[in-house]
Amino acid sequence: MKEHIEKLQKYVEEQGIDAYVVFTSDDHGSEYVVDHFKTRAFLSGFTGSAGTLVVTKDGAYLWTDGRYFIQAEAQLKESGTKLMKMGEPDCPALTKFIADLAESPVVAFDFKTATVDFVEYLKNVCPSVKLVDDEKIIDEIWTERPEVACSKAYYLDDRASGESVESKLAHLREDTKHQGCNVALVSSLDDFAWLFNLRGSDIEYNPVNYAYAIVSQTEAAVFIDKRKIDAKIAKVFEQNGVKTFGYDEVYEYAKSIKEVVLVDKDKTNYALFSCIESAKETALFPTTSRKACKNPVEIRNIRKAHVEDGIAVVKFMRYLKENVGKEEMSEISLADKLEAFRRESKNFLDLSFDTICGYASNGAIVHYSATPETNKKVEKKGLLLVDSGAQYRYGTTDITRTFALGKLTKEEKRAFTLVLKSHIALASTVFPSGTPGARLDAIAREPLYENGMDFKHGTGHGVGYLLNVHEGPQNISPRATTWKYAVYPDMVTSNEPGYYKEGAFGIRHENLVLSVEKGKTEYGTFCAFETLTLVPFDLDGIDAKLLTADEKAWLNDYHKTVFDKLHKSLHGKDLLFLAKATRAI
Amino acid sequence: MKEHIEKLQKYVEEQGIDAYVVFTSDDHGSEYVVDHFKTRAFLSGFTGSAGTLVVTKDGAYLWTDGRYFIQAEAQLKESGTKLMKMGEPDCPALTKFIADLAESPVVAFDFKTATVDFVEYLKNVCPSVKLVDDEKIIDEIWTERPEVACSKAYYLDDRASGESVESKLAHLREDTKHQGCNVALVSSLDDFAWLFNLRGSDIEYNPVNYAYAIVSQTEAAVFIDKRKIDAKIAKVFEQNGVKTFGYDEVYEYAKSIKEVVLVDKDKTNYALFSCIESAKETALFPTTSRKACKNPVEIRNIRKAHVEDGIAVVKFMRYLKENVGKEEMSEISLADKLEAFRRESKNFLDLSFDTICGYASNGAIVHYSATPETNKKVEKKGLLLVDSGAQYRYGTTDITRTFALGKLTKEEKRAFTLVLKSHIALASTVFPSGTPGARLDAIAREPLYENGMDFKHGTGHGVGYLLNVHEGPQNISPRATTWKYAVYPDMVTSNEPGYYKEGAFGIRHENLVLSVEKGKTEYGTFCAFETLTLVPFDLDGIDAKLLTADEKAWLNDYHKTVFDKLHKSLHGKDLLFLAKATRAI
Repeated sequence: MKEHIEKLQKYVEEQGIDAYVVFTSDDHGSEYVVDHFKTRAFLSGFTGSAGTLVVTKDGAYLWTDGRYFIQAEAQLKESGTKLMKMGEPDCPALTKFIADLAESPVVAFDFKTATVDFVEYLKNVCPSVKLVDDEKIIDEIWTERPEVACSKAYYLDDRASGESVESKLAHLREDTKHQGCNVALVSSLDDFAWLFNLRGSDIEYNPVNYAYAIVSQTEAAVFIDKRKIDAKIAKVFEQNGVKTFGYDEVYEYAKSIKEVVLVDKDKTNYALFSCIESAKETALFPTTSRKACKNPVEIRNIRKAHVEDGIAVVKFMRYLKENVGKEEMSEISLADKLEAFRRESKNFLDLSFDTICGYASNGAIVHYSATPETNKKVEKKGLLLVDSGAQYRYGTTDITRTFALGKLTKEEKRAFTLVLKSHIALASTVFPSGTPGARLDAIAREPLYENGMDFKHGTGHGVGYLLNVHEGPQNISPRATTWKYAVYPDMVTSNEPGYYKEGAFGIRHENLVLSVEKGKTEYGTFCAFETLTLVPFDLDGIDAKLLTADEKAWLNDYHKTVFDKLHKSLHGKDLLFLAKATRAI
Repeated sequence: MKEHIEKLQKYVEEQGIDAYVVFTSDDHGSEYVVDHFKTRAFLSGFTGSAGTLVVTKDGAYLWTDGRYFIQAEAQLKESGTKLMKMGEPDCPALTKFIADLAESPVVAFDFKTATVDFVEYLKNVCPSVKLVDDEKIIDEIWTERPEVACSKAYYLDDRASGESVESKLAHLREDTKHQGCNVALVSSLDDFAWLFNLRGSDIEYNPVNYAYAIVSQTEAAVFIDKRKIDAKIAKVFEQNGVKTFGYDEVYEYAKSIKEVVLVDKDKTNYALFSCIESAKETALFPTTSRKACKNPVEIRNIRKAHVEDGIAVVKFMRYLKENVGKEEMSEISLADKLEAFRRESKNFLDLSFDTICGYASNGAIVHYSATPETNKKVEKKGLLLVDSGAQYRYGTTDITRTFALGKLTKEEKRAFTLVLKSHIALASTVFPSGTPGARLDAIAREPLYENGMDFKHGTGHGVGYLLNVHEGPQNISPRATTWKYAVYPDMVTSNEPGYYKEGAFGIRHENLVLSVEKGKTEYGTFCAFETLTLVPFDLDGIDAKLLTADEKAWLNDYHKTVFDKLHKSLHGKDLLFLAKATRAI
């Protein structure tokens, strides 16, 4: 809002600040940010997921990327903020812009929401910069700023977690030593959750608690709002020699450490990083790689979660396919309907992300979220893309199905089938343990490339166990960075190729897959993917003539597995629908 | 030899040198090194392609890698040199070894054969090191040291080169400016050859001349033994404003440059690098990337070369297949026979590398070169692997065929066919222009991975035009480094998957392929490979049941192309053989 920006400009001028910078981040570098941290949206009006605001005494500027130019242009109008189009030739880099403001520009921001990389880069571009840590002014301007939630934490016993806190702490200490340090700072929220077998609901969709841990070879300190902790958790902490401190005490504690501290730079905010006398950055934080490889209990539970999710999505699929054209349906009503089916499970906790339900041309918008303004009526024709997932007591799901509603055009059917070929290519590949995701990504995209087609997102991301639906470190994408984080046995990853025709339709076929060891030969350990998701692909979308014999066999085998694992839990018309939807072609 | 090492040790002691280091390199970082530069082999006795010798006043030490431990152990005995097994836990790094010799160790070596990286790394490990440039002592000890050859250079006119020196110089100047410099140092021998449309025979197999060029926006200087240059070349130089200097004058000239010089660090020796006041290193030197994409004339000529090569290899194939078991044959006699067929072409200039002809278990040694001691008699059974190539007046070839001699075991036939599937997977893939080789490599290896198989070499390397058979920058291999050097249209690359069963047999199927633009869509420019090599795969090795319909179609199409392009040049029994060898299956 214009008045808020003006207040900040006045403050900036009074204080002799050349630029006040507002990031889109919480103190832990989390992917999802709760309302308390949406300062940039509050001040500028721009609500996109990526953007940085700079306020000077006589201007306000927002840097964002091409995905958001149209949205930002509209939303920034009221606040009088100027859109800085990243990537366009006449748009200066934010750091360069700041460097040009003054000879030794004074730059203020909330150090807790800044990344270490940003500060290092700024100092590099502008060595004379003076940094001021200032969050108070935001609290003054934003009088009704939402509080950070303080949900109760809950503990997963060994039957749910598969590994005790004792064992995880021992591994962390061992891994930390292996990386040449005695102390490790756990700042990523899902790493914290995994390490202490704790879950919470501080952030929507992500069952985590705001907390830090600092673990040395002899001590372990947890920094958390003590109201979150019940007697059970307190006992686990006590049994493991874990001392509890207030959430904000982490800064003073960090200052007191004289040894080298192993840190995950991407997840440690600049304020906390600055408190550490000597930090060692690691490309792969120990808990992140341990967490990525699921233990047998987690795997068993994840399979259960997929049965529960499969039941809900099959019921939804039947409802949709049998009633489209007969009842009034919209993107929003269908997303609600799907959520209602999921809520029927007694183990359902929450969705794992905001459902993407995009009909026809809205399906082509990769990160679409229906609003009352965009909400399309769903009719008996064309394609509906539904990407959704849930948190169950025993696991996290993420599935995309594209549904054929009535007769498809030849183009739609062909694209539907080619994306399925792409999905099957990845699902059925065999690869050496430790293969970088970019190599797997090439296998997945080949059937599309052959037809001059492609899609502009990754093919797969890691998925947590009753944790974040986007969990590193592995990633199946064309990027060279996947080299650092290869795919190993027991990881859960999504397999989600797609195809999007702007203004017309979108297709994505997503299952979660578990990498399993297939065997050892003199050439190493070979892995394959086992599909975890249990929902039929819509056979009405498939042009069987485009599938090879092997692809048909894969599809029929998969559908047989879906039927075998779900049929006992479905009855009457749902069961008949399942049988028909999983028939061999 | 022991006496030579002792002479060097005496010298080292007299001069107060702590370590004298001998590398395996010429002044240009070339892959093939002529005898003059084989100082390490002369002194230590070890003839492997990789190894560094360090001589101290009372010791001699040779660092080499695991490929050579057995060979080095045997060859080093006589000279009393100690083998330092790289990669073994108790083997210190060479730089660490030097750093531990003295507080400020004095290290002498021939600066012209040292890489910049070595010196930088040594200085990093041992900042107090004192470096001494000393080649003279080698000339004193090695009284019969071979001279560096001084072959006549020859000029390729526009009909042979497809692009004038004028145009290439203009591009180099433009590219140099684009990288922020005014001056470029061309130190790689094949880059020099390409830039000036010159070829020579200073190095076996590689048709290059020892020379440098320094090209500024207004001047061009060539440093070359003037005896190499004939009137035609002198005229081309004159027409293009190129001044000629003696080969060794490059050092003084480099010192005189006041501007920033663009250099290819991997190809510029430390002595020359040190002469440059201000150097800018580039990940991809301008001439290297221009050279990699062949022009239409080069492509037309390369096709001609492959017809000539195909004729020779088909004749060899007939000779081998029809006479094995009837005549006495050995690995060496067959390599000679193949060379003789190639020499029948009036356009044949030289082989492009030492022929690898490995029978049975020798086929499993990837870089095998038959010697009288290892030379196997070739009989009517099992597999013979022949990797060979030639330099023709109009192009460079490189082909591997594996021949089935008599009845194969089931295992041999299966492996033969699976490697062919791997070859076909790469040959028939479609990919976006600019795909890194590691992504293509994954496509190629998949059919082997599926069977728990793999091979321990790259799948493809770039190939020059009447130039080096190994030419960068593109590379099809599992390495992350391929990200820097992607595959673009008009590149010539090998497609050579393999499988090696130690002690039993080796299989490799290699063709050269040209990347061709297939079409543009909204998702970018897509490429495919067109196979250049024209020789049948031995159908006797194939288990057709293991091939898919698409793979069979590819093979039959390829064999039809081979027949169509060669049949007019073959007659009588050769023609009948070709018809049979290219029959549809």
